[in-house]
Amino acid sequence: MKLYDLSAGANPRRVRIFLAEKGVEVPKVEVDMMKGENQTPEFLALNPLGRLPVLELDDGTILTESVAICRYFEELHPEPPLFGRTALERAQVEMWNRRMELEIMVPAAMTFQHTHDFWKGRLEQVPAWGEQCRDKVMERFAWLDSELAGREFIATADYTVADITAQCGILLGKAVGLRVPESLANLTAWWERVAARPTARA
Amino acid sequence: MKLYDLSAGANPRRVRIFLAEKGVEVPKVEVDMMKGENQTPEFLALNPLGRLPVLELDDGTILTESVAICRYFEELHPEPPLFGRTALERAQVEMWNRRMELEIMVPAAMTFQHTHDFWKGRLEQVPAWGEQCRDKVMERFAWLDSELAGREFIATADYTVADITAQCGILLGKAVGLRVPESLANLTAWWERVAARPTARA
Repeated sequence: MKLYDLSAGANPRRVRIFLAEKGVEVPKVEVDMMKGENQTPEFLALNPLGRLPVLELDDGTILTESVAICRYFEELHPEPPLFGRTALERAQVEMWNRRMELEIMVPAAMTFQHTHDFWKGRLEQVPAWGEQCRDKVMERFAWLDSELAGREFIATADYTVADITAQCGILLGKAVGLRVPESLANLTAWWERVAARPTARA
Repeated sequence: MKLYDLSAGANPRRVRIFLAEKGVEVPKVEVDMMKGENQTPEFLALNPLGRLPVLELDDGTILTESVAICRYFEELHPEPPLFGRTALERAQVEMWNRRMELEIMVPAAMTFQHTHDFWKGRLEQVPAWGEQCRDKVMERFAWLDSELAGREFIATADYTVADITAQCGILLGKAVGLRVPESLANLTAWWERVAARPTARA
């Protein structure tokens, strides 16, 4: 098994934190996006979308999409469960993981891609769209803060993949100045809790 | 159990097709978005994001996000499996369901929201972003066509939730003129296969 990785990538980081929480080590191959290594014919044969991470199984089967890779490891290494313990919890983790992805991580990524100098010339930026996404992330921080009242973690009583997605989304936002305001006490306390985990820097 | 539904919505349709494939009936409450019924205090108490569908369990527990609702029904009614039969298949369904959502359904929705008259005044449209998404969908149709060579369904040998997501994404695209070109023979044949299922109009 081999994990094609990108150290600086928000999605690859989701998988790295997930594996660290499981205590699982997988051989990694760093793909240098800055050098265009994700656009070579060899890499596109693995993932025609040119994205990371990619998991290659020993028989050559390819899995892309961080959450799909995480789910596969959840089945191989069920403990500790990071997708919920019961049918209802698993649905709640799916709900919260999607909310964290669609409401925070994706708009943070859009803000980065459409407003940051790094992407200038690498894609056709639409700054007005980036700014709309920036506002959305800040609104969602306030919403998430209210949802976290009285809760230690996002989806269930335990740390789950939904927390990982939120962590990676917030880290990504920091690159474009999207910071959780201190006035959002629940979200700030949650962030301190998850950032203090030994896996947070994976 | 009660399903808050929106007949014309692409996400609610995912759940309706899923339930029809399972042969499960759930009492539905239609929420009229045109009349703003998804923005009333009562509805926002169910889902602060104002989105549909929403599943309310008998004890009042709320599940939002179509895929989370589908996963819950998959556990309650495992047959026929629509999320895969083995650990690897379940990861492949997750991968393909996400690809269909992120590469086709979401950009089709963005094209609709940012270029269609229906949304004028309802949200701050960024037409340049909508057009970029339109191009992306057409590119992804070509990619999906090549992926479908020799395959009957999108993720595994069986019809799965990934096919449902692709169906609903393509239906949504039709509203803004995004049509699968006949020259894409594999995708066209797949579409004919899934559109002929008795559940396609659910």
